[in-house]
Amino acid sequence: MTDAFREHIVKSFPQILENPVIIACSGGVDSVVLSHLCERCGLDFALAHCNYHLRGEDSDEDQRFTSNLADSLGVRYFTISFDTEAYASAHKLSIQMAARELRYRWFSELLSTQGYSCLLTAHHLDDALETFVINLSRGTGLEGLTGIPAETDKVVRPLLPFTRDEILVFAKEQGIQWREDHSNEETKYLRNKIRHELVPVLRELHPTFQRNFRKTLRFLTHTSAMLSNYIDGLREEIFEPYQDGYRISLNELEDFEPLEAYLYELFKPYGFTSWGDIAGLTNSLSGKEVRSSTHRLIKDREHLILQEFQSKPAESEEREISLDTGDLPLGLKVEQVMEIEEKNNTILYVDKETLNDTLTVRKWQKGDYFYPLGMDGKKKVSKFFKDEKMDAVAKQKQWLLCCGDQIVWIIGRRADDRFKITADTKEILKITTNE
Amino acid sequence: MTDAFREHIVKSFPQILENPVIIACSGGVDSVVLSHLCERCGLDFALAHCNYHLRGEDSDEDQRFTSNLADSLGVRYFTISFDTEAYASAHKLSIQMAARELRYRWFSELLSTQGYSCLLTAHHLDDALETFVINLSRGTGLEGLTGIPAETDKVVRPLLPFTRDEILVFAKEQGIQWREDHSNEETKYLRNKIRHELVPVLRELHPTFQRNFRKTLRFLTHTSAMLSNYIDGLREEIFEPYQDGYRISLNELEDFEPLEAYLYELFKPYGFTSWGDIAGLTNSLSGKEVRSSTHRLIKDREHLILQEFQSKPAESEEREISLDTGDLPLGLKVEQVMEIEEKNNTILYVDKETLNDTLTVRKWQKGDYFYPLGMDGKKKVSKFFKDEKMDAVAKQKQWLLCCGDQIVWIIGRRADDRFKITADTKEILKITTNE
Repeated sequence: MTDAFREHIVKSFPQILENPVIIACSGGVDSVVLSHLCERCGLDFALAHCNYHLRGEDSDEDQRFTSNLADSLGVRYFTISFDTEAYASAHKLSIQMAARELRYRWFSELLSTQGYSCLLTAHHLDDALETFVINLSRGTGLEGLTGIPAETDKVVRPLLPFTRDEILVFAKEQGIQWREDHSNEETKYLRNKIRHELVPVLRELHPTFQRNFRKTLRFLTHTSAMLSNYIDGLREEIFEPYQDGYRISLNELEDFEPLEAYLYELFKPYGFTSWGDIAGLTNSLSGKEVRSSTHRLIKDREHLILQEFQSKPAESEEREISLDTGDLPLGLKVEQVMEIEEKNNTILYVDKETLNDTLTVRKWQKGDYFYPLGMDGKKKVSKFFKDEKMDAVAKQKQWLLCCGDQIVWIIGRRADDRFKITADTKEILKITTNE
Repeated sequence: MTDAFREHIVKSFPQILENPVIIACSGGVDSVVLSHLCERCGLDFALAHCNYHLRGEDSDEDQRFTSNLADSLGVRYFTISFDTEAYASAHKLSIQMAARELRYRWFSELLSTQGYSCLLTAHHLDDALETFVINLSRGTGLEGLTGIPAETDKVVRPLLPFTRDEILVFAKEQGIQWREDHSNEETKYLRNKIRHELVPVLRELHPTFQRNFRKTLRFLTHTSAMLSNYIDGLREEIFEPYQDGYRISLNELEDFEPLEAYLYELFKPYGFTSWGDIAGLTNSLSGKEVRSSTHRLIKDREHLILQEFQSKPAESEEREISLDTGDLPLGLKVEQVMEIEEKNNTILYVDKETLNDTLTVRKWQKGDYFYPLGMDGKKKVSKFFKDEKMDAVAKQKQWLLCCGDQIVWIIGRRADDRFKITADTKEILKITTNE
């Protein structure tokens, strides 16, 4: 399995071979096996463990176990304690949703403050199948069937092609210890039903069902990628910048069929989920609007107008900035340093001498390109956004630090090669963002 | 159920309310209920029944039953006898495949010779679910999951939103008689397994699972339609007419990711199914080729070249024709008649006086439009092709009869309004195709 795992990450996630990552480690067999595999493949990683304090002594045992695992693998260890029940009741969430929120907030904080490039989770093929079936039973679309994506913004799931059995067999063969997971009983009921009652029937229908499902998942993921290329392209074509948002000509929309499906895909990144409502809007009177939790969509004679709530018009404008006067927006901080200290995505080191034109911050524009640090040649910013799996909203929120018409920094994400520190650098500027 | 059925066809298949159709009627409960529903909705239809002679007296009973049904509904009845076993062994096919081939060939013949616009089959929601699961068990993509399309070229399936139970309940409530179907035992084994072992578990996972599946199917079908709009558009963009086929710049293809998935979708209509092979071709030496049963794809330095086997270059050229000398290609026949006789898609009646320019036959070109008979205004031929669910190959094979730069007839499919017979017509020409 080690070889298959190595081959898979070399092919699909080469970036995790080059940048430090965090593994979300519960102590269960999946995340423990993932940790061992990463160690064998020479990855630079740390373990992060959440103690939800939901199962008394058992929870503390899990924490001790994962701490010892990190020691024995010789890697850094992060842990945190949550009062999950208090948080859940304060925010009116299920225990599961509360744990999820707490977990992902902490992971995201760890990534940005500790200089790790992404989080690895131990989801495997049976998880994907169970998600597929649960979503199917509830009614779903392509996205629900592709289930658990192999990669989303800063989360990578390298065990996804492997089955639960393969992971278990590997752990036993290699004498790897793990903790049995007793949490999450409600989901477990559904998942057990699928595992013990549904999968056996599917296997009777076709003996290599699981292997075939891996193929299905790959096909669906590819289709989903094509569709999102299509919709992203359409959005660039028909979303016309307007005030602080966009407007879309109803006349142009009319050509799309099935219209409801197009509307759903086009507006999904803005939090709209009810396609019937939006389709209704196209036939409504001017002034009628539909709201998502973050945006409103207004029917205005010949157009749909998309606006973010409480958007601050000034913020999206290009702004000149001065490093000397310290007049820095967006929580940017600058200081001169003697050498490169810690490195992570929230910090940019630049050669001061290279900043020989007006500095500005602005949003992305069509046609923008830059020279990603460490890469040969230039890259379109739109392509970079796509590779980073950024959705339309994330793209719209992304700030760029520019020097004249050159991009210096996709703030918080990637530096430009032209401004990097070299052996000839005389003065090093360290720019930090809190975004 | 009659109301729900009526509402469904008004919304989704208005064309079958206006044109005569054929119902494929086995005598089983599904097709018998479909026949009754069509009668109640006032459709103009005939029944067509195949006797496969696979179950002795039972087969003949089915035939008598459907013939009586047609009588009692007061509609036309077509029937045919097949020596299915002989055909299967002669063509090395399974009995099922043989029956399918024989059936569809006959139906297609009936449609084109008897003046019916399309065939209705009685597939329902459980059929779609069973197809979904069988394909899933074997490994599939989006197309395999959408399962049974509601509409393909000249086949419409108006019972698809209804469950087996709904159909059965309706038949019993209305005192409708039907014949139990004992054929097709192998598929039945799989379908029974799904019905009795899998569906109950899915229903335990979610009580309204079947209703939800209807939603899933609609979402997937919509997604599939969007994808096919996308790929059709791409094909028009990057397939450059070349010799008697197309060529595609490898340089342009490079931008598409995941490339294998794009190649698969782009070349699927030409019979290529193995995307790995085609992807391999993009990296091969010039001269290497991959074949489907109808086409070859050749790597030629900077391009992929797509050619049909035994293509006859002369055939795709525009050719001038003369109705007077009888110099007619493509099996066209022309005669002067006194009045409009039988009507169907293989026959065109034109007002001779309107043909006041050079007559030609040619293939479709981008930008072509015509004035569909009976419709207000003009329509792009590409849009017509899409509405007819024609794939890339069918479009490429389609001939147009033109008068000067006006389209007179999408041969075998639709006439143009500008050349129709009116009260003022003096001479009527009847043009027949055998294509």
